[in-house]
Amino acid sequence: MLTLTTLRQVPPAFIGFVRDLRVRWALEEAGLPYQVRQVGPEEQASSAYRAEQPFGQIPVLRDGDSTVFESGAILLHLGQTSAHLLPADPQARSSALQWMFAALNSVEPHVAGLAQFRFAGANGPEAQERGAQLEKMAERRLGELDAALHDRDYLAGEFSAADILMVCVLRLLGSSGMLARHPRVHAYVERCTARPAFRKALADHRASFEAAAA
Amino acid sequence: MLTLTTLRQVPPAFIGFVRDLRVRWALEEAGLPYQVRQVGPEEQASSAYRAEQPFGQIPVLRDGDSTVFESGAILLHLGQTSAHLLPADPQARSSALQWMFAALNSVEPHVAGLAQFRFAGANGPEAQERGAQLEKMAERRLGELDAALHDRDYLAGEFSAADILMVCVLRLLGSSGMLARHPRVHAYVERCTARPAFRKALADHRASFEAAAA
Repeated sequence: MLTLTTLRQVPPAFIGFVRDLRVRWALEEAGLPYQVRQVGPEEQASSAYRAEQPFGQIPVLRDGDSTVFESGAILLHLGQTSAHLLPADPQARSSALQWMFAALNSVEPHVAGLAQFRFAGANGPEAQERGAQLEKMAERRLGELDAALHDRDYLAGEFSAADILMVCVLRLLGSSGMLARHPRVHAYVERCTARPAFRKALADHRASFEAAAA
Repeated sequence: MLTLTTLRQVPPAFIGFVRDLRVRWALEEAGLPYQVRQVGPEEQASSAYRAEQPFGQIPVLRDGDSTVFESGAILLHLGQTSAHLLPADPQARSSALQWMFAALNSVEPHVAGLAQFRFAGANGPEAQERGAQLEKMAERRLGELDAALHDRDYLAGEFSAADILMVCVLRLLGSSGMLARHPRVHAYVERCTARPAFRKALADHRASFEAAAA
């Protein structure tokens, strides 16, 4: 049995964006049943949990005797046994792997940096300049992604774990209107989030936090 | 033959930190000969280059008919055929993979954020507050890494691609004195950068940029 570790409670604004969603989506795409384990701050700080997850973060996936941390590594782990997540063809698989890293290391730093900046709400003169720089860099990445999507519906040909990571990153800009300025990126996010696996994963993700808050 | 694409020229302060170093180090560890292709801004902006690297970045590795972008994906690609980069034992391999993602997605955003902030040299009141926040978060990650290193010399047991990525990230803090406050992290970086493969890679990396500047 697979066990996904996530948080017990998060601030309402974070619901829909906590990283267990990436893993839930992948598990739904792969058709793999799983159970959920919820942890709170005390357990996250414990040495037992740090032995599993050295930064005290979530998600962690337990798969039999082994545990995997880092959402990217978990999707790679699941992809090793599911062609729904990583294509079997070596060329397409290599493409999916590089796009997984691109989502996490070339796009997320800029998109998450901008989303965090906006969430913090600083608005002094230095902050305004910084906000403009962050927006420019995120816009640049969106434009580059838009260009890359000119000949494909998904990053690596068919839908893969790379799309799960990229779309979960892009969703951080959801309410900003930035995605709408890049029509292919916008359509790509709509296409991916219309998948039944995403909708089921998001519903379960929300339900788990809403149940804890009630 | 393997061909590594890197930049033709970079500002002097960036020499020693450009991401081709990660790939050079991995290639030296694996004992793989390679040639270097240097690109400038015009080529980076070209549609031919964007077809290889959608963000116009380096490094790119050409391996026969296939090309791979993203330093993490390149190390994973090389690790698939070299036990010097990824251990053959499934448990150790899984550990190396998760630490590769941890280096790029849990440590680099904070460390690189702080390094970029310091490089930019902003020092107004908002910037001071922001600098303190960035330092606190980077310190936290260094402390967590220090704790994780209590029972091991390398992240995944034996030296692996995970150490290449983590050490290249940590080196961004080189002159700040922050590493010295975390003795196991400090010793770990010293241990890894003392390896002949790193020293050769760094020397070749420097030489390529210094030749271009001359």
